[in-house]
Amino acid sequence: MTREIPALVFDAYGTLFDVHSVTRLAESLFPGKGAAISAAWRTKQLEYTWLRTIMGSYEDFARVTRSALEWTLESLAVDAGEDAHRALLEEYRRLAPFPEVPAMLERLAGGRALAILSNGHPEMLDAVVDHAGLRPHFRGGVLSVHPARRFKPDPAVYRIAEEALGVPRALMGFVSSNGWDAAGAKAFGFRAFWVNRSGASVERLGVRPDAIVKDLGELESLLA
Amino acid sequence: MTREIPALVFDAYGTLFDVHSVTRLAESLFPGKGAAISAAWRTKQLEYTWLRTIMGSYEDFARVTRSALEWTLESLAVDAGEDAHRALLEEYRRLAPFPEVPAMLERLAGGRALAILSNGHPEMLDAVVDHAGLRPHFRGGVLSVHPARRFKPDPAVYRIAEEALGVPRALMGFVSSNGWDAAGAKAFGFRAFWVNRSGASVERLGVRPDAIVKDLGELESLLA
Repeated sequence: MTREIPALVFDAYGTLFDVHSVTRLAESLFPGKGAAISAAWRTKQLEYTWLRTIMGSYEDFARVTRSALEWTLESLAVDAGEDAHRALLEEYRRLAPFPEVPAMLERLAGGRALAILSNGHPEMLDAVVDHAGLRPHFRGGVLSVHPARRFKPDPAVYRIAEEALGVPRALMGFVSSNGWDAAGAKAFGFRAFWVNRSGASVERLGVRPDAIVKDLGELESLLA
Repeated sequence: MTREIPALVFDAYGTLFDVHSVTRLAESLFPGKGAAISAAWRTKQLEYTWLRTIMGSYEDFARVTRSALEWTLESLAVDAGEDAHRALLEEYRRLAPFPEVPAMLERLAGGRALAILSNGHPEMLDAVVDHAGLRPHFRGGVLSVHPARRFKPDPAVYRIAEEALGVPRALMGFVSSNGWDAAGAKAFGFRAFWVNRSGASVERLGVRPDAIVKDLGELESLLA
């Protein structure tokens, strides 16, 4: 299967980086509410990316993330000052990679171009990739949806990766832990690998991923 | 304010009809899980409308609703047979209107064209409106997004109401309990009235509704 896939494109948030690694800081700032803040923040963040794409009123992911945090803290009746807001947002630039990620990227990069395609604003995306020291693996590029002024799963976004890597979409592997992102990539024409870290049910969006793995280790075995 | 608004367009699900009125049937079929089924079903239903609109892979709301139910029951590890599926879906054609709705529509219709603009497939939408006996109030029409093959908050959807009623968008009142739908209508150029039944926080989507009311009674007072 390796020979068939000369390039692999990874989603960042939720796939390489654990968005819920903000829970610890949220919990220390607001005891008893860390998990609820993290969960609601992520849900609202995605909702806003989808709604703004449909409304045609794009604003970048850093702003969407801040708007979603404001909504979340107000909804949960958390009285957070400017410092707490800033600290939580700053944490998004230091999200932890999932444990297996560095070693598996090292292996997957052998003879294959790796890239990232993320909703993240280029500046915040660069920050989180560099903080984790992962940039050397991505010689295919660290790509943001930003130039398209739309978020995933808009086809225009997946086209950014296709064009940057110059690999026909049918030969491009796309790796995401977000089931809807894997579905969007598959609908676009990529080979879709869904990293189902949480044992979630397959999304009913009219397409199925080409393979379902539980983490990047299983992906590496599959492609070896 | 009445004279300024010759036409009022209502969202259906969540605004006129209580989508969580399925909870009772879900609870009787699957004791202890009714509320969880109802909540997850609605969340996933909306998610699929947004994702399919962005992906450009529309399927009608009856199918989306069925897909969301399948995902929900599998996710909650509910072993439901074909009969239970059918009964729950059938319930969507008999959703209860919120208590104040019939009397307030009667009053709001005085000297003003009322219409519905809904994500619902025309057939299921007609069924729920007729079941509640509300059709006589809507001389402006019971309109579905279906001809646009996109869901809210796509601007093409709000245009359906503008064109059907022949009222300039700035004079059209749009009423929704879904904060993101009110935002989409406002971004399109309608006068947006958000019926905030649950005391939710205002969505951070770059626009604010023109007014926030707690139910249709308060809307009627505002426009009287």
